[in-house]
Amino acid sequence: MTLKTGIVGGTGYTGVELLRLLAGHPEVELSVITSRSEAGRDVADLFPNLRGYLDIRFTEPDIGVLAACDVVFFATPNGTAMTMAPQLIEAGVRIIDLAADFRLKRAAEWEEWYGIPHTCPEYLGQAVYGLTEVNRDAIREARLVANPGCYPTAVQLGFLPLIEQRVIDIDHLVADAKSGVSGAGRKAETGTLLCEASENFKAYGVSGHRHLPEIRQGLELSAGQPVGLTFVPHLTPMIRGIHATLYAQLTDPDRDLQALYEARYGNEPFVDVLPPGAHPETRSVRGANQCRLAVHQPRKGGVVVILSVIDNLVKGAAGQAVQNMNVMFGLDETSGLSGIALLP
Amino acid sequence: MTLKTGIVGGTGYTGVELLRLLAGHPEVELSVITSRSEAGRDVADLFPNLRGYLDIRFTEPDIGVLAACDVVFFATPNGTAMTMAPQLIEAGVRIIDLAADFRLKRAAEWEEWYGIPHTCPEYLGQAVYGLTEVNRDAIREARLVANPGCYPTAVQLGFLPLIEQRVIDIDHLVADAKSGVSGAGRKAETGTLLCEASENFKAYGVSGHRHLPEIRQGLELSAGQPVGLTFVPHLTPMIRGIHATLYAQLTDPDRDLQALYEARYGNEPFVDVLPPGAHPETRSVRGANQCRLAVHQPRKGGVVVILSVIDNLVKGAAGQAVQNMNVMFGLDETSGLSGIALLP
Amino acid sequence: MTLKTGIVGGTGYTGVELLRLLAGHPEVELSVITSRSEAGRDVADLFPNLRGYLDIRFTEPDIGVLAACDVVFFATPNGTAMTMAPQLIEAGVRIIDLAADFRLKRAAEWEEWYGIPHTCPEYLGQAVYGLTEVNRDAIREARLVANPGCYPTAVQLGFLPLIEQRVIDIDHLVADAKSGVSGAGRKAETGTLLCEASENFKAYGVSGHRHLPEIRQGLELSAGQPVGLTFVPHLTPMIRGIHATLYAQLTDPDRDLQALYEARYGNEPFVDVLPPGAHPETRSVRGANQCRLAVHQPRKGGVVVILSVIDNLVKGAAGQAVQNMNVMFGLDETSGLSGIALLP
Amino acid sequence: MTLKTGIVGGTGYTGVELLRLLAGHPEVELSVITSRSEAGRDVADLFPNLRGYLDIRFTEPDIGVLAACDVVFFATPNGTAMTMAPQLIEAGVRIIDLAADFRLKRAAEWEEWYGIPHTCPEYLGQAVYGLTEVNRDAIREARLVANPGCYPTAVQLGFLPLIEQRVIDIDHLVADAKSGVSGAGRKAETGTLLCEASENFKAYGVSGHRHLPEIRQGLELSAGQPVGLTFVPHLTPMIRGIHATLYAQLTDPDRDLQALYEARYGNEPFVDVLPPGAHPETRSVRGANQCRLAVHQPRKGGVVVILSVIDNLVKGAAGQAVQNMNVMFGLDETSGLSGIALLP
Repeated sequence: MTLKTGIVGGTGYTGVELLRLLAGHPEVELSVITSRSEAGRDVADLFPNLRGYLDIRFTEPDIGVLAACDVVFFATPNGTAMTMAPQLIEAGVRIIDLAADFRLKRAAEWEEWYGIPHTCPEYLGQAVYGLTEVNRDAIREARLVANPGCYPTAVQLGFLPLIEQRVIDIDHLVADAKSGVSGAGRKAETGTLLCEASENFKAYGVSGHRHLPEIRQGLELSAGQPVGLTFVPHLTPMIRGIHATLYAQLTDPDRDLQALYEARYGNEPFVDVLPPGAHPETRSVRGANQCRLAVHQPRKGGVVVILSVIDNLVKGAAGQAVQNMNVMFGLDETSGLSGIALLP
Repeated sequence: MTLKTGIVGGTGYTGVELLRLLAGHPEVELSVITSRSEAGRDVADLFPNLRGYLDIRFTEPDIGVLAACDVVFFATPNGTAMTMAPQLIEAGVRIIDLAADFRLKRAAEWEEWYGIPHTCPEYLGQAVYGLTEVNRDAIREARLVANPGCYPTAVQLGFLPLIEQRVIDIDHLVADAKSGVSGAGRKAETGTLLCEASENFKAYGVSGHRHLPEIRQGLELSAGQPVGLTFVPHLTPMIRGIHATLYAQLTDPDRDLQALYEARYGNEPFVDVLPPGAHPETRSVRGANQCRLAVHQPRKGGVVVILSVIDNLVKGAAGQAVQNMNVMFGLDETSGLSGIALLP
Repeated sequence: MTLKTGIVGGTGYTGVELLRLLAGHPEVELSVITSRSEAGRDVADLFPNLRGYLDIRFTEPDIGVLAACDVVFFATPNGTAMTMAPQLIEAGVRIIDLAADFRLKRAAEWEEWYGIPHTCPEYLGQAVYGLTEVNRDAIREARLVANPGCYPTAVQLGFLPLIEQRVIDIDHLVADAKSGVSGAGRKAETGTLLCEASENFKAYGVSGHRHLPEIRQGLELSAGQPVGLTFVPHLTPMIRGIHATLYAQLTDPDRDLQALYEARYGNEPFVDVLPPGAHPETRSVRGANQCRLAVHQPRKGGVVVILSVIDNLVKGAAGQAVQNMNVMFGLDETSGLSGIALLP
Repeated sequence: MTLKTGIVGGTGYTGVELLRLLAGHPEVELSVITSRSEAGRDVADLFPNLRGYLDIRFTEPDIGVLAACDVVFFATPNGTAMTMAPQLIEAGVRIIDLAADFRLKRAAEWEEWYGIPHTCPEYLGQAVYGLTEVNRDAIREARLVANPGCYPTAVQLGFLPLIEQRVIDIDHLVADAKSGVSGAGRKAETGTLLCEASENFKAYGVSGHRHLPEIRQGLELSAGQPVGLTFVPHLTPMIRGIHATLYAQLTDPDRDLQALYEARYGNEPFVDVLPPGAHPETRSVRGANQCRLAVHQPRKGGVVVILSVIDNLVKGAAGQAVQNMNVMFGLDETSGLSGIALLP
């Protein structure tokens, strides 16, 4: 089986990562990649790592051409997928949106955080939130998958076992997350210049970040009730990787938390629970579709600390999108995703 | 007035930073610097940034020579200062220990965390903990100053106003701290090689770090009662800088926290409270004896988030040591410490 | 066909890279990996990127066990392979040495540069220098392949077309080469700590580097006469990558140099000649077994400038070793080597 | 004596560095700093390292206000100083231009390389090229100083002793130079994003860089005849620092080159000739107004290799500008420039 795939957008970092993964996927043919700004340009000219592996040019977006695909990925800025997805879905194409357009269930909340009107709120209901480890069955049937954000992937995979098993006080969760700079994208902006962002560490968005409602929605769905979450993202001077450090107060400090996590994720191909006492490193997942977790209960006290790492461009974006595609089309879930992290 | 100063140790990163600051201090003469391993070597040969600014050689440590100094700094591994300080104090020399030997008040706790017997526990009582903004008066008279650790400086300066004013629940404090790699010192170890520590982010010591009892001691002294603190340090891929992100639950969410911090630190030359909404960057203090703080209360809720940055080698080590020296000898507290952070 | 492979050494950076490549190679079974210092330890415990991909432990080196392999790689310090290779060759095992033991043809020259006696100089004659693009036919039959050094790979691939076609003055060659820090290995040494090597750039070994005689030998073999080469290596603050900038004076400034390079490397799967005017980036080959070259003749003058980039751990070490293994055993030369460079 | 100084521009990296140096200069009062884009904004808001050290706002450029200064620095893009300098000079203000407007003596050459007409070519003659170690006497009297480019400073200081003493073949010079990313300025551009420029190394401008004619002009002035120079700049993944590696063929291989350099620069406060065999590191000058040089003659052959390092923002820009100001106004040449490089 060979899937005909298309990409809308694809000049950013999630785009080039998606190209890398699809170029190496044994059951995929990349039929079309669109970009208004780069139309006509050889993809390998923009991303020279692809020279010799991918022979395709950017074209102007054209619904007719995209409609011939089995699946179309949107690697576009927020607000683009919602303008094209409905037509493609009507045409029978299955959609995976790597942006945020379909992540939140309530249009009003989406508009509050993203600052523009939602043009197809009627699709929010059928969109399946693509955290594969939570929604695998629904993803299998989905026409429209909302691929999770990078922080939300790391934070939810870290917190969910505790919430599902109701062993923590969900009113006082803290998620202190650190991201490499590629999370900010490939736009030319002063703040992400090497001279501004290297040899430097800072928090940002403490008053409220767009990933907060997305994380909260996922945790509340699991908890069946409101959760109290403080989420602080930080920029760390490296290209790839997210490290989420999660804090919660245990309601049952004697519970075997290590066993709880191993039971939850034992059969997951892309979630790896490290041995007790471990400290996962972001580089251990660099370029790989993996989330590695460690569970700590410092000095056997009442606080649990979860360490969760992903590559923001892979399990936090393009890799998880391919994982979802595999699930949607009945392929082996790991197909095209067996690349090992690059270390050092 | 010219102080005769000596340094014991000084081949590590706090050592070279102390040398940089003392070489530019208008009221200091560096009389002696000792190192067993580098005795006989020109200091500027080991640290070429000092070529042309400092003309002195490392010598073998000699109590007689050191005793001629007004003040001796120990920039040695833990466990060294306690073997030499008593003799020097008896000889009338004033001591500033940049290591941990005299930071904890209880010898048993020290021995538990540092793993070796304390050889002069009788000096713990007279040692003054050198967090200048807390103990300025006692430092003025001290014979022996225990210069604070880097994390403890950033975390205590961040939490203290909240504790002093009793506006938070002190049972559930979280300090999520991120340090540049120079905090690990100049020893050759695999974990701090560029190829291991760059393009990588990780937590360490989640089960318990030596700075935990030091921080807790300081906070409890201020609170007058036990505090519950979870402290998680992380290694971030840069040379200098600590960013502490501090979380606490407010007992009075309507209190004007910005005003509280500005009142506490308004007269402090080396603590800078940023305007509301700011996110301090570690690079804004690179090379400077500054702590910059920002106060956040996300979405006006019940949680306060404090962001606190220092240069771990300056306000977190050598700069604070010079600040303490200035106080001890009645100099202008800012003397020799007016260097502006290097940005970019 | 499944090759039984063994690795001697393998706790360094070329080792972990070899493990990554072999773990993903469809025709390889990794039978044994030895390490005296790590014997008994799970490989994935030392290199957590391999968790889930490789289930093998380090063992003590044992000639009997290694002799059961089809091919054994030495990823050891210089001087180790020469003590074990003869026995294994006698036992019918084919050897690929990633260290320098068999790279130089003259034992006296080897001993001068490496400072120890060569224990099996009689094998230097039969050893084939594993620059695949030069010695492919001989490698096919080789019992013992001396895998080239990283700098020598980048420099020779850059200079060879000019020398083969005799279009430059070979008395005055300059190779100014810059390497990421992983070239220095995983040993704990002060000079390669993040705090010493990041935000810093320096030359080293200007008076003479061990790769000089190796490069010169290769160039002279091609030229059929002595060459005059100045080689200056530099350390650049990144993990992976070599950039060689090569300078020569043209004897025929009107020759179409672009065509010359395209003709020489047009059929090579792992050498990519970029379009005229291009500047190859090291990241375009990060993790990939590629050498990318660009040819410049500034202002159409008498000087040719060649830019040559490789990943020092891949085409400069482990990847080229796998390429040579493929050639030796009649596999598709690109088998297991189709991974695309990780960008960004 | 207190100089009234003004800065035109000053929102870029040479600007903030100039601010840092002038804020700490004992004989300077910063009267005005202009920026069209940031007019009205507190300088310390844009550059938080200056908080507490500098209390001034950006204003719209106004010739009348600037005319009240003793000296005005232009830290503007190329092409700006030439539109304002003549009026200010007429008004008696002395000018130091950190951009390229007055560096080349021939207007036609300037226009060829900079691509715009020169609006005041009649000032090129009186402009003094501000390489202090070459033109100190002329700078003393100059109304208009053209502060050298960063690469030209490192390369000329490296080559000049050899050319002045006529010990090399000046037809075949090679300057292979590597710069930190701050040399590209603070403009938001894709190529200098952290995710593009870190973990990466590349050459650029091989076909011709604007600093080539500037370097050549300086060398030819010294040689009294044309020189043949190949200049290749590279981008290295760090913020500050230039390392120039210079190659030339000796006409007299027996000459004592170390002595030659020590004689030439023995009295220079800001040029440091390292001992034989040394390899200067860029970090040894980070933040300092220093050029450190080492002289090598590999294997006593016919090639000389000079290693020259500067901080591109200090000796390569703002520091040299202050040095020139000191000379112009008869101050101690080192005034305000005694800061020690930050290491690590």
